[in-house]
Amino acid sequence: MNRQQLVTAIGQTKSYLCVGLDTDETKLPAHLQGRPDAVLQFNHDMIKATLPYCVAYKINTAFYEAMGGRGWEIMEATFRAIPDTHLKIADAKRGDIGNTSSQYARAFFETMGADAITVAPYMGEDSIRPFLEYENKWTIVLALTSNKGSADFQRMALVPRAESGLDLVPNLAGPGRSELLYEKVIQTVNQWGSPENLMYVVGATQAHELSHIRQLAPEHFLLVPGVGFQGGSLADVSKHGLNADAGLLVNASRAIIYASPHEDYLEAAAQIAAEYQTEMSAYLSAAS
Amino acid sequence: MNRQQLVTAIGQTKSYLCVGLDTDETKLPAHLQGRPDAVLQFNHDMIKATLPYCVAYKINTAFYEAMGGRGWEIMEATFRAIPDTHLKIADAKRGDIGNTSSQYARAFFETMGADAITVAPYMGEDSIRPFLEYENKWTIVLALTSNKGSADFQRMALVPRAESGLDLVPNLAGPGRSELLYEKVIQTVNQWGSPENLMYVVGATQAHELSHIRQLAPEHFLLVPGVGFQGGSLADVSKHGLNADAGLLVNASRAIIYASPHEDYLEAAAQIAAEYQTEMSAYLSAAS
Repeated sequence: MNRQQLVTAIGQTKSYLCVGLDTDETKLPAHLQGRPDAVLQFNHDMIKATLPYCVAYKINTAFYEAMGGRGWEIMEATFRAIPDTHLKIADAKRGDIGNTSSQYARAFFETMGADAITVAPYMGEDSIRPFLEYENKWTIVLALTSNKGSADFQRMALVPRAESGLDLVPNLAGPGRSELLYEKVIQTVNQWGSPENLMYVVGATQAHELSHIRQLAPEHFLLVPGVGFQGGSLADVSKHGLNADAGLLVNASRAIIYASPHEDYLEAAAQIAAEYQTEMSAYLSAAS
Repeated sequence: MNRQQLVTAIGQTKSYLCVGLDTDETKLPAHLQGRPDAVLQFNHDMIKATLPYCVAYKINTAFYEAMGGRGWEIMEATFRAIPDTHLKIADAKRGDIGNTSSQYARAFFETMGADAITVAPYMGEDSIRPFLEYENKWTIVLALTSNKGSADFQRMALVPRAESGLDLVPNLAGPGRSELLYEKVIQTVNQWGSPENLMYVVGATQAHELSHIRQLAPEHFLLVPGVGFQGGSLADVSKHGLNADAGLLVNASRAIIYASPHEDYLEAAAQIAAEYQTEMSAYLSAAS
């Protein structure tokens, strides 16, 4: 799915909701537990129930890998169950030296059929390039995450390059303060791709930082996890993050898929997804 | 496998060789290609052929994921084929928020039966803690890698914490130069684990930096990929990296498993592995 198709889907659905299928076998509604096909059935039905209210699905690979080979098969079948009208994101946080990243790109873009994959930037350009080489696929690079540990390295202040003897690069953070690692990541990775094939992961609990990140990446889509159980505010995220093409994908996982632990779990999920869609529709109108 | 067992294995084998099973279907010897069980058979035989010369096997998850669900099953079977006398490393470069990292830890330490997993530090403490919580398992954190992209972020100079308004931490890099991100990663992660459950990935092409990294992590095991086709020198790595318990695992993948493209591939692999072992045996004697 390319950018124009994604932007069109957002305009038609009036939603920038991404539903996170972090399906944990032990958290399924009681009446499904113990059935061997329970996770796949749950995902199938969850996709059907939420389809009108979202534009993307994000599959967290960890939850499937924890189930072993069977889990990997369920993940593949779940990707196949998502219609091509919706963006299919593998939330995999991969990244390795070039020839290994090429294998990951093949695993997710070819074998798995994903449209997009999340990747970690620590190993630099040659760890990310192999993903960017695929046409009509998306590489979503970790920039600033919403967890407590984001303070450990992502927010470290960097010595300006002139002082460290390297080339000076524009510092959009402005004079008077040093660039932080996540800002450097965005500015550096911006040069490797374009808003047509590159997005960033930006945590929702840092909504006040979103307007700053918007300056660093004015046109890029931002994937914002953490709305819902992780505690971000959709209003804040939308206020600071929306751009002319929407430019946001806001993910909710547990808030939707575990909306009810009972037999009404699909109705409950659809209702929560519809509430997100209604709210997003209003923010889209206000922004345009 | 705990530290004492690993140290004992190194002493008995007189080797700190790790064999990397980055098995690529398209690179198998011609007579194996096209057989549905070719990769697993290749791995099985490769393990048998190299067992006397190494103390660890490293399985690069990307190469198996590229084959889809079938690949995941082959990876599981390969882990089962490694005897408990040898350290089983999942080279997976995972890392995500806490509840997701817990799922990855379960996937590799429980379902897969690995002794160790490589993880990326970008998301900080709560992304790494879930791996460290497992007893007699190892978390191997990316510190300084050998690829060109290691310059992009890992070697960025950081503003000393006092200047950035945060607590001052000891800077082993010494006065006169700023700490680099990879140094900060080592010093910070050191506080989360111990030499009993924590190792670092350090690229072999930076052998001259190994003695510096040894100062930052005097007792930790270092996993050094990149000897062989990636171009590092085993002599340099050993000179700068060995400590009283050896403290090194030096990986070779393609140099061993693709030593010959013909029917003699097992003899060729065993011979290369034996050459590494002979060389390592000499370095161990010299260091003790």
